[in-house]
Amino acid sequence: MTAEEKDPGTVRPGGRTARVRASVLRAGGDLLVEAGFDRLDLAEVARRAEVGKTTVYRRWGTPAALVADLLTDMAETSLPRSDTGSLDGDLLANARLVAGALADPRQGPLFKAVIAAATTDAGAAEALHHFYEVRVAEWTPCVEQAVLRGELPEDTDAPEVIRAVSAPLYYRLLTTAAPLDGPAAERAARAAAAAARAGAYPRTPRT
Amino acid sequence: MTAEEKDPGTVRPGGRTARVRASVLRAGGDLLVEAGFDRLDLAEVARRAEVGKTTVYRRWGTPAALVADLLTDMAETSLPRSDTGSLDGDLLANARLVAGALADPRQGPLFKAVIAAATTDAGAAEALHHFYEVRVAEWTPCVEQAVLRGELPEDTDAPEVIRAVSAPLYYRLLTTAAPLDGPAAERAARAAAAAARAGAYPRTPRT
Repeated sequence: MTAEEKDPGTVRPGGRTARVRASVLRAGGDLLVEAGFDRLDLAEVARRAEVGKTTVYRRWGTPAALVADLLTDMAETSLPRSDTGSLDGDLLANARLVAGALADPRQGPLFKAVIAAATTDAGAAEALHHFYEVRVAEWTPCVEQAVLRGELPEDTDAPEVIRAVSAPLYYRLLTTAAPLDGPAAERAARAAAAAARAGAYPRTPRT
Repeated sequence: MTAEEKDPGTVRPGGRTARVRASVLRAGGDLLVEAGFDRLDLAEVARRAEVGKTTVYRRWGTPAALVADLLTDMAETSLPRSDTGSLDGDLLANARLVAGALADPRQGPLFKAVIAAATTDAGAAEALHHFYEVRVAEWTPCVEQAVLRGELPEDTDAPEVIRAVSAPLYYRLLTTAAPLDGPAAERAARAAAAAARAGAYPRTPRT
């Protein structure tokens, strides 16, 4: 985000910059889903976004940088964590959010496309890893608070519990044709909570 | 597999067909890892495999069919399930096998490449889903036997427990830069076993 965009007083230039970014990210996401990362041509993105090619090349430079900005936008617009007062409630809210995003007709294919991009491009992989670090960090306090409430062992690796909620949903998305429905989300949350209660996620690995 | 290859008596033609398949799958896997599914050109595969283009086009036809055969080969050469006599032992053996494959310098990138291919190509996706069905079915008896031994609730969804062992390992491979090491495998096995014991994988979803 530039200084311009952060200042709500400068409506014209700030608004225009934000609109250009929104159009380019929309067009970039569409093209990524349709054609894949290998064919994510910035000139074509500019044409679809109805934005000058020079602007797109100057601001994003490479397809990997565009994917990185797309992931920044996805992280910025992701919902904040829940605080239901119980581990089960919080993990269920998280699982439903993840399953809902992966089942969404636009977001699901977009997640698949950025994961695919990350398998071949180091820059896209770095951006993807950062995206998940941000999302995991957002939800980690749910587990930390459950530890403080005495719901989980003290030595619990909190980020790993959050990753455990997402893992079966992504695995289902990528390796099966099964739907990402309510029961899948509920099972993911319940399994992560049960394993955490049983002490399966210690910070210090057992030997 | 053709009739020729199944007959061990016909060494010349059977041996040659099997050698051609091995060369083409090796070259196809290499090119898939290097260039991605979008650039999996069968003529280039034939050149690298030192096999006639006509043979490759006649036998495999499309890049998706080549990926499907690659996955068939990966399933055929995968190790059979363990039978250690306990759920913990069997799931740990499974987790170590999966983590070992994903951490392998050749197999890891190949798994990433076929998962990426499946995000854009329906034929590759179908082949990938079939691959995982076969692998999950191979290991499912470990969980069924644990149910019979009274280690797990009767209503346990056995294939889902096997998928739960793999899920965090694939999630780690695809969304983080963290290593697929021994502790990761042990945690995956321990978490799946703990969640299964707690009844988190019922065949009939709770309402």
